[in-house]
Amino acid sequence: MLLPTLTQEPSELRAMMRSGELSGLTSGMAPGYVQANLVILPREQAFDFLLFCQRNPKPCPLLEVVEAGSVEPSQMAPGVDLRTDLPRYRVFENGKLVEEPTSISHVWRDDLVSFLIGCSFTFESALINGGIRIPHFEEGKNTAMFVTSIETTPAGIFSGPMVVSMRAIPRNKLVRAVQITSRFPSVHGSPVHIGDPAAIGVKDITTPDLGDPAVVGEDDVPVFWGCGVTPQVVAMNSKPPLMITHAPGHMFITDVPDEDMAVL
Amino acid sequence: MLLPTLTQEPSELRAMMRSGELSGLTSGMAPGYVQANLVILPREQAFDFLLFCQRNPKPCPLLEVVEAGSVEPSQMAPGVDLRTDLPRYRVFENGKLVEEPTSISHVWRDDLVSFLIGCSFTFESALINGGIRIPHFEEGKNTAMFVTSIETTPAGIFSGPMVVSMRAIPRNKLVRAVQITSRFPSVHGSPVHIGDPAAIGVKDITTPDLGDPAVVGEDDVPVFWGCGVTPQVVAMNSKPPLMITHAPGHMFITDVPDEDMAVL
Repeated sequence: MLLPTLTQEPSELRAMMRSGELSGLTSGMAPGYVQANLVILPREQAFDFLLFCQRNPKPCPLLEVVEAGSVEPSQMAPGVDLRTDLPRYRVFENGKLVEEPTSISHVWRDDLVSFLIGCSFTFESALINGGIRIPHFEEGKNTAMFVTSIETTPAGIFSGPMVVSMRAIPRNKLVRAVQITSRFPSVHGSPVHIGDPAAIGVKDITTPDLGDPAVVGEDDVPVFWGCGVTPQVVAMNSKPPLMITHAPGHMFITDVPDEDMAVL
Repeated sequence: MLLPTLTQEPSELRAMMRSGELSGLTSGMAPGYVQANLVILPREQAFDFLLFCQRNPKPCPLLEVVEAGSVEPSQMAPGVDLRTDLPRYRVFENGKLVEEPTSISHVWRDDLVSFLIGCSFTFESALINGGIRIPHFEEGKNTAMFVTSIETTPAGIFSGPMVVSMRAIPRNKLVRAVQITSRFPSVHGSPVHIGDPAAIGVKDITTPDLGDPAVVGEDDVPVFWGCGVTPQVVAMNSKPPLMITHAPGHMFITDVPDEDMAVL
C-alpha cells in the first residue's frame, strides 16, 4: 500500500479515500487547497441549519450547500461523491454518535442535504505565509479547541455554545494576525476574542475541551477564532434524528485554492 | 400633516410609515443608517430562497431572516412590525404583481418567512464619504439598473438573470471605488463587472431597464454592482404562489449604522 505524500493533488488523495487506502487525518495534506467541514442533515432540518449558518457565520461559514438528491459539490469539487471521498465520517442518531465509518453509502438517503463549512486550515496557511508560527500545524497536531460561554444565535431546533479554536500569537504579531484572518471570512475570518480566556468561559487555557494542548508563551496572547466543530456540539444539543459529519480532523479536501477564499 | 425631514431617526420615520403619513421613496432618509430590501415567502419556498441567497451573495446579501410566526427583525430593528413599518409593498401571486399596498396586514399569514437583503444606499454613502460623486444620489433619483446576461446560480425553483446597478466612476477613482465597496460585502460588496457593458449583455448604457438614466462622462468608466432587485426579477421568472417585497425605492429603514456593515 502506498502512503500518501503531502504534495499529492486533491483528486489523487480523494481517490485513495474512496478506495479505502487512506482513512487518517488530513492536516497538512494538499497544501494550498481549501479543506472543509461536512454536515449532512435530512431535508426536514435543512432550513433550520442553513439559517443557523447564516446567523453564525464565524463558527459556520458556508462554502457550499448540496441539495437533496445530489452527492456532488459542483462548486468546490466537481465529480466528487461526498459519500465516499472523505477519509472518515461520524453518524449521529438523535444526538448520539453511533458509528465512525470510512464511507456513508450504507446510510445514504435521497432526502439528505450536505453542507460544506470553512475550516481554519486555510487561514493557518495564510498566517504561516505571513510569518506567524503555528506550532501545532508544524507538528501535525490538532488545534486546541474550547467550548465557550458565548451562545450561538439559535435557528429553529439548533442552539448551543460556540466552540472556538485557540492559537498563541506573539504580541508583536497580533495586529497582523487580525488583518490576515480578516481577509478570509469564509473560513472563520477575524477572531471572536483576544486575550482573557475567562471572559469567554475558558477556565484553563492549558486543557482544551477538544484537540491537543497548546503552549502559550510569556510574550504570547491567546487568540480565539470561531470553530467548525460548533455544529457537532450544537447537534448533540439539538438532537436531530440523523446527522452525518466528517470525523474531527478528517476533512473534505476540495479543488479550490486557498487564495480564492480571500475577499481582499 | 408633517413632512419627514432627512435627519429624523429611523424609529420616527417608521412610526410615520406605520400610521400611513409617509408612503414615498426612502432615498436619502435617515442618513448613516442601513436600508434594506424585503422579500417575504411562504415557508414552503423559504429553504430554496435562503439557498438562492447563499449562492448569490453579490445580488442577494442576507442581513437577517425572520422565521415564520414572527414579524420582528430583532437584529436589525427590534420592536418593528414588518407588516406596517415600510412605506410601500408589492404583492406578487404566481409571479404577477397584484397590489402595491402601504401595509400587508391584510395578506399576512403565519407561515410567511421574511428576508432582509442589503441595499446599495449603504455603500453609496461610503463612496461619497470617500470623495466619489454619485449624481443620482444627490439629485434624489434612482440608480440605473440593468438586467444582464449573467445567470444567477439557481436554487430549487429560483433561477434567472442577475440585475446590476451601474455607477459612472471617474477613471482616477476606480481603484478607490473597488476598495471602498469591498469593505461592505453585506450590502453587495465589490463590483461584479468594470467597463464594457456589452460583455454582460447591456446593449445601451443610456437606457436602463429599471431606475433613472445616468450620464457616463468621457473620463468615466461604467461600474456594475449586484442589485437587490434581482430577487424580484427571479421571482417573476420562478412564479412562487405568493411573494411580497418592498416597492422599488421604498426600503426598510433599520436601526443599524452603515459602518457596522463594514468588514474591515
